[in-house]
Amino acid sequence: MQAKRTAAEASLLSVSLDRKVKTPLHAQLADQLRRLILNGRLPVGSKLPSSRKLSAELSVSRVTVVTAMDQLLSEGYIETRQGSGVFVTVTADLPDGAVLRPDYSQGIGFEKPFEMSEALEIRPFQTALPDLSLFPHRQWSRTFDRIWRQPDATLLTNQDPFGWPALRVAIADHLAAWRGIACSPEQIVVTAGTRDAIDLIAHGAFRKDDTVLVENPGYKSLGLALVDGGLKVRPVPMGPQGFDIARGAALAPEAKGAVVTPSRQFPLGMTLPVARRLDLLSWARETDGLLIEDDYDSEFRYSGAPLPALMSLDEHGAVVYLGSFSKVLSPTFRLGFLVAPHRLLDAIRNRLLATGPRASFLVQPVLARFMAEGNFAVHLRRMRRVYGQRRDVLAAALAEQLGDVLEMGDLSAGMHAVAWLRGDRKSTETDQEIAARASGAGLFLQPLSSYYAGKTRTQGLVLGYAAFDDARLIDGVRRLSGVLNG
Amino acid sequence: MQAKRTAAEASLLSVSLDRKVKTPLHAQLADQLRRLILNGRLPVGSKLPSSRKLSAELSVSRVTVVTAMDQLLSEGYIETRQGSGVFVTVTADLPDGAVLRPDYSQGIGFEKPFEMSEALEIRPFQTALPDLSLFPHRQWSRTFDRIWRQPDATLLTNQDPFGWPALRVAIADHLAAWRGIACSPEQIVVTAGTRDAIDLIAHGAFRKDDTVLVENPGYKSLGLALVDGGLKVRPVPMGPQGFDIARGAALAPEAKGAVVTPSRQFPLGMTLPVARRLDLLSWARETDGLLIEDDYDSEFRYSGAPLPALMSLDEHGAVVYLGSFSKVLSPTFRLGFLVAPHRLLDAIRNRLLATGPRASFLVQPVLARFMAEGNFAVHLRRMRRVYGQRRDVLAAALAEQLGDVLEMGDLSAGMHAVAWLRGDRKSTETDQEIAARASGAGLFLQPLSSYYAGKTRTQGLVLGYAAFDDARLIDGVRRLSGVLNG
Repeated sequence: MQAKRTAAEASLLSVSLDRKVKTPLHAQLADQLRRLILNGRLPVGSKLPSSRKLSAELSVSRVTVVTAMDQLLSEGYIETRQGSGVFVTVTADLPDGAVLRPDYSQGIGFEKPFEMSEALEIRPFQTALPDLSLFPHRQWSRTFDRIWRQPDATLLTNQDPFGWPALRVAIADHLAAWRGIACSPEQIVVTAGTRDAIDLIAHGAFRKDDTVLVENPGYKSLGLALVDGGLKVRPVPMGPQGFDIARGAALAPEAKGAVVTPSRQFPLGMTLPVARRLDLLSWARETDGLLIEDDYDSEFRYSGAPLPALMSLDEHGAVVYLGSFSKVLSPTFRLGFLVAPHRLLDAIRNRLLATGPRASFLVQPVLARFMAEGNFAVHLRRMRRVYGQRRDVLAAALAEQLGDVLEMGDLSAGMHAVAWLRGDRKSTETDQEIAARASGAGLFLQPLSSYYAGKTRTQGLVLGYAAFDDARLIDGVRRLSGVLNG
Repeated sequence: MQAKRTAAEASLLSVSLDRKVKTPLHAQLADQLRRLILNGRLPVGSKLPSSRKLSAELSVSRVTVVTAMDQLLSEGYIETRQGSGVFVTVTADLPDGAVLRPDYSQGIGFEKPFEMSEALEIRPFQTALPDLSLFPHRQWSRTFDRIWRQPDATLLTNQDPFGWPALRVAIADHLAAWRGIACSPEQIVVTAGTRDAIDLIAHGAFRKDDTVLVENPGYKSLGLALVDGGLKVRPVPMGPQGFDIARGAALAPEAKGAVVTPSRQFPLGMTLPVARRLDLLSWARETDGLLIEDDYDSEFRYSGAPLPALMSLDEHGAVVYLGSFSKVLSPTFRLGFLVAPHRLLDAIRNRLLATGPRASFLVQPVLARFMAEGNFAVHLRRMRRVYGQRRDVLAAALAEQLGDVLEMGDLSAGMHAVAWLRGDRKSTETDQEIAARASGAGLFLQPLSSYYAGKTRTQGLVLGYAAFDDARLIDGVRRLSGVLNG
């Protein structure tokens, strides 16, 4: 059999004949072919395989095939064309309600993807995206092939709901080296992303309707995931140093937890000072509260020593750590992880057993080996260097062309920068209006105000730069200058 | 650089030195090495690379490296051993609170997966599992490599939240050919499984606290997903013909929807008659209710013509169809899909945009090509033949050894069979007790009663057979006979 088939040939593979029932095989075959024609799976004009080929594919005699064909010919569903074969036709009296569906066969296959919705083209200054053109695709593909061409039996049987064991080991090692976290692989759960992680924590560590503090501005999907998990969310306004637990506790004394981004507040970018971290841990100890540390892109710090993760300071099992591979590696993986204190592991396991594992097991062993062989760390270091250079390019271009209009936020880390409008530009136009105009100039600007809950919203622009090379960044700043100065 | 590194060498890749800050490079390097030693990432006894190698890897002068090493030597973190290099030692005065984490490096990598929880070994008669040893791994791996070795730019930019366009086309074609459903690819959403699909439907088609009817017995995770989606669930007892909407409507007149398994009731196995299907559609039209058709393994029908899907009878946009690749292809993919009527697409899109895409984009284009080239249909046909033979083997062995004890349910389709205890065996022992004893005999029996909600539970055994070859099935029946007759 060939690897490539026409759509019509592929559809014939669905035919299933049963020798145990009373209906003769030729009648069964005619019935099923009729159905394929009526539902459009064998489209009008498509050519049927020869009776010889069909009898071989379906493991029935040629007499059976020819008898079925004769029936359909007499009903007008198919016709023979001299010298060229048998074709599906339209002359048949179609029964009421028969559906002739459009022929999508043009859209089949990878080479010509069917365009169903507006293509989500990546434009400057889209956020939270790595530069996938720099991903080591060849190396990754080779690793995939080494593991899956002749997979080890354990790959096919071991589906620990916490995730592939070797990947959890690799993540623990990565966290120790890059984030100063000393955890054991038992504490790690591989997830399909932050949303999944929040679901596990919401059901494993809280009661329904518990209140959780979140940062304002902050990552809205995360708040939505908390609400979906049955929790109440209380946004806490950020001061210049970031999250202040005293303020949060005053706003919601009943709070049972808090989601924080201490390494780099999202989206504002400030690092939470050590004193504030210790305050958080004290609050958690006193109230028996849980801290959820969202450490979304902390691998990319370009200058200064990174503060270790909040979790590395925790001695009382008060912190759950959330990590993601989407931003540092590739969003196509849909992989993230959480690190839970031991006291929560049983509850998380129960939730996992009730709802099933989250992340694809196809990718996990490949990523585990990719990490264990050091390729992940090499890639991170390379990206850190590249993104650091891009940050410099962006900052220089903005300073030159828009220094009198925009004031830049912290640029020492991450994959995006925040820019505030200076002076009298503040009041003339909202960031939403600027973003709308920028869209017409081929730019994607995230208005800072869109990250806020409530009425008090600071105006500004969030500029992602990691996914764009120097030329696109410079061109993007030129366009942005046209938008803001034009 | 070599592809393989020691764990210690890999951890050194995380070192990041910054020329812009005041701290000298050698002090930065000493700090970071100290941290790696303290958190155990450079375990006691591990050998450091030579200063020449380290200076090359970190792009700093050898003087910088040697100065940093001298500092750590003087602090006692490392020691030189004559002629063999520099090693991490324990003689240092470790500060309070420093963590020397256990060395998991033995567990790193794929060859020796770290055993963290009891291995989830697959035993007869576990359910809902395909036989992964028959999966065309080589072909799949080749397809993966063709797509991802040098990926098309659209692969890296197009992340339509509904899923990879070509996969949606391939699914539409598959549904037309195998299930008689005429839908367009626009109606298809690729999900990470049934749980994700229910989340989209719960938020896209219902209001909070709406009541949804579910089958009793039924698929419990699905009911849990509905509850997690903010809905109320009302179980409807199954009669001999399956779901009866009149009974459901009498139990819960306020119901706004129903989840049904018309092709093959889960887990009992009966097919819902056409009259009952038409009743369902009438109810939906009259009450503006939504029917959710869970078509979990309908591809595997061994005898008789399959009834077309409920959705194929629907002319009023009253049915959402749920399909899964976990059971027919591989649970490692974590891929499923839903087909929604046009009227729900906007609401589903809003939910997707708020929560992000669900399924890994790494697998989707590979599966799309696998399907478009006909390999999926070939695999399904092969599995249908194999599973049909296994069903025969299981039925024959059960009839021979346990015919007087067990009464078998419908065996014309699917991947599992239901067995009821005959006569006086009914009352002597619960199915839970039998399952517990069978576990000791190396079997995995799912008690039928575990699929029920409420107090009225029928006793029986659910026997998955698809994942086990003839020898294991025969051995399994022998063991089961020992359990039941012993």
